[in-house]
Amino acid sequence: MSLTAIMYDRVMSRWEPNARGRLMHAALELYVSRGFEQTTVAEIAKLAGLTERTFFRYFADKREVLFWGAGELQELLVSTVAGAPDSDAPITVIGAAIEAAGVVFEERREGAVLRQSVIAANAELQERELIKLAALASAMADALRQRGVKDPGASLSAEAGIAVLKIAFERWINEASPQDLPQLIRELFDELKVVTGAI
Amino acid sequence: MSLTAIMYDRVMSRWEPNARGRLMHAALELYVSRGFEQTTVAEIAKLAGLTERTFFRYFADKREVLFWGAGELQELLVSTVAGAPDSDAPITVIGAAIEAAGVVFEERREGAVLRQSVIAANAELQERELIKLAALASAMADALRQRGVKDPGASLSAEAGIAVLKIAFERWINEASPQDLPQLIRELFDELKVVTGAI
Repeated sequence: MSLTAIMYDRVMSRWEPNARGRLMHAALELYVSRGFEQTTVAEIAKLAGLTERTFFRYFADKREVLFWGAGELQELLVSTVAGAPDSDAPITVIGAAIEAAGVVFEERREGAVLRQSVIAANAELQERELIKLAALASAMADALRQRGVKDPGASLSAEAGIAVLKIAFERWINEASPQDLPQLIRELFDELKVVTGAI
Repeated sequence: MSLTAIMYDRVMSRWEPNARGRLMHAALELYVSRGFEQTTVAEIAKLAGLTERTFFRYFADKREVLFWGAGELQELLVSTVAGAPDSDAPITVIGAAIEAAGVVFEERREGAVLRQSVIAANAELQERELIKLAALASAMADALRQRGVKDPGASLSAEAGIAVLKIAFERWINEASPQDLPQLIRELFDELKVVTGAI
């Protein structure tokens, strides 16, 4: 049994056996084993035991399978920012939001690793990932402004948070014995304070 | 005389009348007046008084006209990081590099404003811009590591610097009476210290 197959089985066992989930797992399996460009929607649907018509009821195209979670992630970040105590400083609020995202990724590490290997192999997917990160920063900055935080503090805090998430995520994905992601995120926020303390 | 034409004349008067410059100005004029998608390489060459063959000697495609300066910008950032005093803290080194970039943009404001209006109107160009910014962060982090700065400090400092550049640039482009960009960059680095001080 290949490593991919083992990881795939572990992912499968965690996810619900619904149509969307089956399509996502089938897509990821094919993207990893034969490459994103070489995979067709027909093949994904077939492996999932579903029709192409069903595929398109859930996803606009084969790229969107990889980015479907972006909307949920944005909602999590924005709702965490909105729900933070009034007395919390903007960077504390952002820290809580990024850590909440870290908890979600930590629970889905196997899927995140497979997904990242697909994205790393394709320039177009990497561009899409950067657009997604920029949109998350923008949404968190908006959520801070809703709390009355002025610019440039709102934008700076949000962008700093996304920078921490990006660096933490890369380390977590690439390390053979990864640290707990939420813990890594907390350490990077502390390190950010040390780094900027020298300004 | 339209505002675009006036701005275009002011840009033209600053740039050298060489083939690359003529092609860049012709392209920008057409992208602004009729849109990026609607403009052909043949039209750019014609307006510049040159042939398509000459265009392709300088640029791979019409998109690259807008991103030709990215390589020079990266060199400027990397060489500023490499040439900073040994005793400077990583964030101070990054601050100096971003400010040097700010000086260059400040000298070319009219061209930067036109270019940004073209990019803002096209999703594919925005993705390319984000890729460019990510590459600049990565190149600066590498340059810091060459100076012996360890991670995550190197990555964090570089990403924080790009966050400042992005926010400063957006404000500078969109304000009717813009502040001096290098000054705006210095203020945002100071604000970053204030923001992260609350971690």
